[in-house]
Amino acid sequence: MSVLAVGTVAFDQIETPFGKRDKALGGSAMYITMAARFMCDDVRLVAVVGNDFPPEYREVMASRQINLAGLEVQEDGLTFAWGGRYHYDLNNRDTVYTDLNVLATFDPVLPAEYRDANVLCLGNLDPGVQDSVLNQVVDPSIVICDTMNYWIEQTPEKLKHILSRVDCLVVNDSEARELSDSSNLVVAAKKIREMGPEIVVIKKGEHGALLFANESVFMVPAYPLEDIQDPTGAGDAFMGGFAGFLSGCKDIDLDSLKHALVHGSAVASFTVEQFGPEGLYDLSRPEIEKRIDAFRDLTTIPVSAVTQF
Amino acid sequence: MSVLAVGTVAFDQIETPFGKRDKALGGSAMYITMAARFMCDDVRLVAVVGNDFPPEYREVMASRQINLAGLEVQEDGLTFAWGGRYHYDLNNRDTVYTDLNVLATFDPVLPAEYRDANVLCLGNLDPGVQDSVLNQVVDPSIVICDTMNYWIEQTPEKLKHILSRVDCLVVNDSEARELSDSSNLVVAAKKIREMGPEIVVIKKGEHGALLFANESVFMVPAYPLEDIQDPTGAGDAFMGGFAGFLSGCKDIDLDSLKHALVHGSAVASFTVEQFGPEGLYDLSRPEIEKRIDAFRDLTTIPVSAVTQF
Repeated sequence: MSVLAVGTVAFDQIETPFGKRDKALGGSAMYITMAARFMCDDVRLVAVVGNDFPPEYREVMASRQINLAGLEVQEDGLTFAWGGRYHYDLNNRDTVYTDLNVLATFDPVLPAEYRDANVLCLGNLDPGVQDSVLNQVVDPSIVICDTMNYWIEQTPEKLKHILSRVDCLVVNDSEARELSDSSNLVVAAKKIREMGPEIVVIKKGEHGALLFANESVFMVPAYPLEDIQDPTGAGDAFMGGFAGFLSGCKDIDLDSLKHALVHGSAVASFTVEQFGPEGLYDLSRPEIEKRIDAFRDLTTIPVSAVTQF
Repeated sequence: MSVLAVGTVAFDQIETPFGKRDKALGGSAMYITMAARFMCDDVRLVAVVGNDFPPEYREVMASRQINLAGLEVQEDGLTFAWGGRYHYDLNNRDTVYTDLNVLATFDPVLPAEYRDANVLCLGNLDPGVQDSVLNQVVDPSIVICDTMNYWIEQTPEKLKHILSRVDCLVVNDSEARELSDSSNLVVAAKKIREMGPEIVVIKKGEHGALLFANESVFMVPAYPLEDIQDPTGAGDAFMGGFAGFLSGCKDIDLDSLKHALVHGSAVASFTVEQFGPEGLYDLSRPEIEKRIDAFRDLTTIPVSAVTQF
């Protein structure tokens, strides 16, 4: 089964209290596909880069058998570039710059071989571009969508339209609050579900993630790590792990969604342990499964009754 | 088995986006004992009030068989009063005023019948007062301590001393960060454990709580509620439920601590659903157990393997 992810491939300039990277490989489509590859053999990327995108960055993805047929190279443009600086507590960051470059005119045309993808990930992008990609995929099993404050504020109508067409929205808590105009996340999820997506996943950074599906709520913590280097890409890696796991499921039911959430959180936990995507470079599925066992230990309320007086 | 809690009994002025209360019954010792009573028959309160403390507030506690032999009445003083205003998202609040009144000279002398308490809760107070109470209790099974930023900043030496004498510290995440001078909560817990308490519980408000004990970490979420009226006292109710549950355990081991954490979180979840302590008034142990079942549903990663292709 297959995952198709549309999003960005970028140069990231990252500054955290623990170090700096300049022109690091970044972008939502890169993180989603890198993470999804641990759970899925057939992962297809849709994005655009410029003439400055180095072969070694392409090789990072190609060597992991990520299908790059959909990675458009605009020979007369520069790759999308983003710079961010994290605060001391890593929970907040300032955007230092955003150079859209080739992203400004991105109008993806999917390779024919891409169109039968089972799991479609619409990474954070102009909702119009997300819509166009959705139109090009034939009967996906599940469509998972991300967005951000910018689109909530600048293109609310286009966002509403795409939301009415997707099965699952994956957003940060602040975005969920803004989109629903509700500070309470349970209420926010309910309102968002009324906008279209039956499944809502709210990412809370170091506090984990919430899944709202059917009439159930499920919660997975972020793994409590002693050494967090860089939160960049954690949310996208989460989405990739989530999507990758679902691509392997015969039925997308509550149990498979819960497992997918835990897989997403596990991959994200490796991402933040190193800078940029470096934490994913030498990762393996068994290591992910081992961390999932640790998640179980972390959250399982013992079944055994405690001996009471 | 018994719980003894020292702390405040107060008049709270509370303002949240959902309503206001003036001169509501409040205070850490009140919340701790009210919550502990659901798990423990013998709950003893140590606090001070002034000549203005109304009989009906005393009756709220007395009617629930909370032992009030240790509730000192200073006939020439006024009850400690606190006013707070919560922001829109309920995660932050401003203190509008703090009138220490009788609390300023509080020097508790425990009734003789109190001294054999099994579980000792040192609610948020001057660490010197906490120390004095600890000196008056004979061989408790476990000593649980709370504190706040004020004591971390103003009386660091006295705080260090009491920390070296307690088994368990229960604090907010911001306090844990400040006390340990570390933004990372795993590192913070480690540093705090080096100060004395073998067990560290970090409360994260709407994001739940973390337990650090032995070499384990355990996490319980806050129950995702659609209708939160007032977070006042939730942390103290959490501590009371935690302590109350432990008072019934033959052994205080990792399993009993995990159960205690879940019980604390469950009682806290009822507290925030109404103003002040009102959410605890008509609560029953079966309702708490029912919510704990909901916590299980919320966090249990399904054991069943998901059918994969």
